[in-house]
Amino acid sequence: MSDVNAGELKTDRVSLRRRPDRGHYDHASVAAVLDQTFLCHIGFDVEGQPFVIPTSFGRKDKTVYVHGSSASRMLRHVAKGFPICLTVTILDGLVLARSAFNHSMNYRSAVILGTARLVEGEEKYRALEIMADHMLPGRWDETRLPNETEMVATSVLALDIAEASVKIRKGPPLDDDEDLAHPCWAGIVPVNSYVHAPIADPRSPKPVEPPSYLKNIRGLPMTETK
Amino acid sequence: MSDVNAGELKTDRVSLRRRPDRGHYDHASVAAVLDQTFLCHIGFDVEGQPFVIPTSFGRKDKTVYVHGSSASRMLRHVAKGFPICLTVTILDGLVLARSAFNHSMNYRSAVILGTARLVEGEEKYRALEIMADHMLPGRWDETRLPNETEMVATSVLALDIAEASVKIRKGPPLDDDEDLAHPCWAGIVPVNSYVHAPIADPRSPKPVEPPSYLKNIRGLPMTETK
Repeated sequence: MSDVNAGELKTDRVSLRRRPDRGHYDHASVAAVLDQTFLCHIGFDVEGQPFVIPTSFGRKDKTVYVHGSSASRMLRHVAKGFPICLTVTILDGLVLARSAFNHSMNYRSAVILGTARLVEGEEKYRALEIMADHMLPGRWDETRLPNETEMVATSVLALDIAEASVKIRKGPPLDDDEDLAHPCWAGIVPVNSYVHAPIADPRSPKPVEPPSYLKNIRGLPMTETK
Repeated sequence: MSDVNAGELKTDRVSLRRRPDRGHYDHASVAAVLDQTFLCHIGFDVEGQPFVIPTSFGRKDKTVYVHGSSASRMLRHVAKGFPICLTVTILDGLVLARSAFNHSMNYRSAVILGTARLVEGEEKYRALEIMADHMLPGRWDETRLPNETEMVATSVLALDIAEASVKIRKGPPLDDDEDLAHPCWAGIVPVNSYVHAPIADPRSPKPVEPPSYLKNIRGLPMTETK
């Protein structure tokens, strides 16, 4: 099974051991996970203690950008060149097997290892645009763009995607044949993210029509807000 | 601002620095985040490289349980007594400000620091029940329960909730007053998880009625599967 799913991002330490068929190691697979959601989790180590912090991000080509306050402990620490792990996970469903042992989750996750670098100057400004447009393509051009004070108050980190794995678990439960006759219901319960109709800021001086890009956010279905 | 939101789980290293009003440090706040979702991210360090891995979990009282293959690198490593971080995040919405700088996300996250311990014997069996019932209360009693081979193949880790923070960002964008007249739309786009109608395992020898506990999964709304 060792040749299953090779890829240019594969190294020993990101390789899936137990279910190699669920591992993917190419840029297209990483991008497919990253581009369908909004939050990542960044793992870093401070004096022997791991921290895992959720944050928004943007991807452009083979680089992921995150930003935060220049005063943030995480950004200040990570910018020093310590290795990090950036993980993005999308839950797709609950997998209910007949055996307790074979219960699982359907999900897609991307795990990227590397060392982030602090981004400055023109690349920093462009990275902020990439992050805004990752959240909502077209948003950046409509906003009041960052001024010098805001640029100083924000730090931006870039992580190149060079060592990464994607794990995908999908499909029905995998019960043993001898459990199929067990009388409980078995199958999957799909779980998905949905977007509700936008809610205007109550401080808006006059009503503004929601922009068309709010009608299709990363392909997520839109429901009425209850 | 330093006395804002004290709590029994607060230490210096989990305290929110920049927006102390968004931090909560009590068991009820942690439980409220953990009990509304299915996946956590576990951060651990192997030879100086942080890893962040998504996994399912269960909570009972002041302890979080996770499980995995006894052959899993993560579980074998973490069981040695290295410190970990267990983070749970729920995205609630996109926050669209008039200024690019004030764009944000509404979310709730719980960050728990500590050292996990390997669980054995009766507590291990009970922990598996807690995890099954965290996914779906009532599920455990209907399943084919673990046999001895499966118990050996599964490792269970327990992390006591003793040092933790919850961060909650909610509400509209926080634009500066002088930006309110900027002409773009501003407000929030709520994002939520939904559950679709369950899909029976095609290997089921005969149709089984979905159990009633599938009709209300953690209070998530159910939609028709498209």
